Amino acid sequence: MNRKQTSTSANAQILGRVRSLSRRSVRDREHSFWIEGIRQFVQAFDSRLDFSAVVYSPILLKSALAEMLIRRLAAAGVPRYRVSPEEFRSVGAALHASGVGAIVRQHWTPLDVAAHRQGLGWLIVESIRSPGNLGTMLRTAEAAGMSGVIFVGPDCDPFDPVVVRACMGGMFPLPLVRVRMDELAKWGTQQQIQLVGLSPEAEQLWSKAPLTKNVGLVLGEERSGLSEPMRKLCRTTVRLPMTGTADSLNVAMAASVMMYELVRRAQPLA
Amino acid sequence: MNRKQTSTSANAQILGRVRSLSRRSVRDREHSFWIEGIRQFVQAFDSRLDFSAVVYSPILLKSALAEMLIRRLAAAGVPRYRVSPEEFRSVGAALHASGVGAIVRQHWTPLDVAAHRQGLGWLIVESIRSPGNLGTMLRTAEAAGMSGVIFVGPDCDPFDPVVVRACMGGMFPLPLVRVRMDELAKWGTQQQIQLVGLSPEAEQLWSKAPLTKNVGLVLGEERSGLSEPMRKLCRTTVRLPMTGTADSLNVAMAASVMMYELVRRAQPLA
Repeated sequence: MNRKQTSTSANAQILGRVRSLSRRSVRDREHSFWIEGIRQFVQAFDSRLDFSAVVYSPILLKSALAEMLIRRLAAAGVPRYRVSPEEFRSVGAALHASGVGAIVRQHWTPLDVAAHRQGLGWLIVESIRSPGNLGTMLRTAEAAGMSGVIFVGPDCDPFDPVVVRACMGGMFPLPLVRVRMDELAKWGTQQQIQLVGLSPEAEQLWSKAPLTKNVGLVLGEERSGLSEPMRKLCRTTVRLPMTGTADSLNVAMAASVMMYELVRRAQPLA
Repeated sequence: MNRKQTSTSANAQILGRVRSLSRRSVRDREHSFWIEGIRQFVQAFDSRLDFSAVVYSPILLKSALAEMLIRRLAAAGVPRYRVSPEEFRSVGAALHASGVGAIVRQHWTPLDVAAHRQGLGWLIVESIRSPGNLGTMLRTAEAAGMSGVIFVGPDCDPFDPVVVRACMGGMFPLPLVRVRMDELAKWGTQQQIQLVGLSPEAEQLWSKAPLTKNVGLVLGEERSGLSEPMRKLCRTTVRLPMTGTADSLNVAMAASVMMYELVRRAQPLA
């Protein structure tokens, strides 16, 4: 019926590829991830992410901006796959299918490149169990103006679909770095980074700790907190006071409060 | 097999009641809600909530503390229903069924009773769309030591199962108040509450606004923000700076940063 319609087998192939990206092993191997929805699509474009393929359903898509960007990507050689609403919904996770999604290359930055970036400081993540928490932290990191996010070790995958959804596109412009613990230690010494660990057991209050210009805020796992080697690496540990009976603050909340403490201190006085 | 086993029909009845509490209309009519899991159960007990019924599965339950509390509640006249693991799982939302849950009375506090409570200030919620966001905000409010949470109008239900789960029991000790807008206005004037609205359009930075001793932090809906009448009621509006490209901070993050700004200002100097 429509000459632009790609073949059914090509559609089946790309939809299979999209589905397979829900698995971490596939994401790691292909250095790619799936984004979905107009907001994410536009933000990924604006952040100059590297598009491998666009999947769209003209019947569902109600955004002239997204249509224009699809054409521009196609003109630049990015393959586009026109699918039916049913096909789109078969891979889409959103309640209201937007009709646009894309396979995008993961944007990792090497530590030595990222290190020169200006900004408020680094968010350093050892291990966050909940992808929703991680997504919210990335969103706040971008809003607050952090220099980037450093993942220590292989535990966390910022390209998990739940993380990507929770951060609302906020992670696309953020430099993301993956390092080993020993690389972090070496870099921290070389660049004179003050590693500041957030820990409920710390003596110092978050608001009173002396902080230097180059801060790396270190967040540990939701329940177990910072690992022992990481705790040793942190020159400073700080806590948020808890006056209630709650066991602990949500880790994303604590991280946000601490990032905005950096914002507050970076403000001119008066 | 077991003489303590309650009858199948009694079990079916209580499980039907638990299921019906997932609907707001039923929760409102019965002034009750469902809690689940050892942590919530213990925290509800510690917070002296009013238990209507306990539902437990001895085969699943692996907590001596919870077993002891079930016995104490039973001794105090609270009916308990012993169910099979399958029955428990049929109402439980948790991935790993803990084996204990309870129907508990909603703990609303009248404004004139709550008004005398000491604390850091009030969290005032007009309308939050995401129950996950609301739950996280309640959890932070309790951790930070807020006086309580005031809901303006009927929009938000803190006893929604997703809210209850997201706040990890943090809302149980918190005074919760429901008022109309005109009641809030009258109370604010009488008690000399400084209503401080969080709004991305505000001129004043969150960290620089002069705040009095009695603060009411007002949070609006995720996208539309504060309603016009609420904005007029707020003597002060403040914003968190956003240097990134993200549209806006997550509302729960913004609320947390602002609550900890109150904590910071309440600290003794030096």
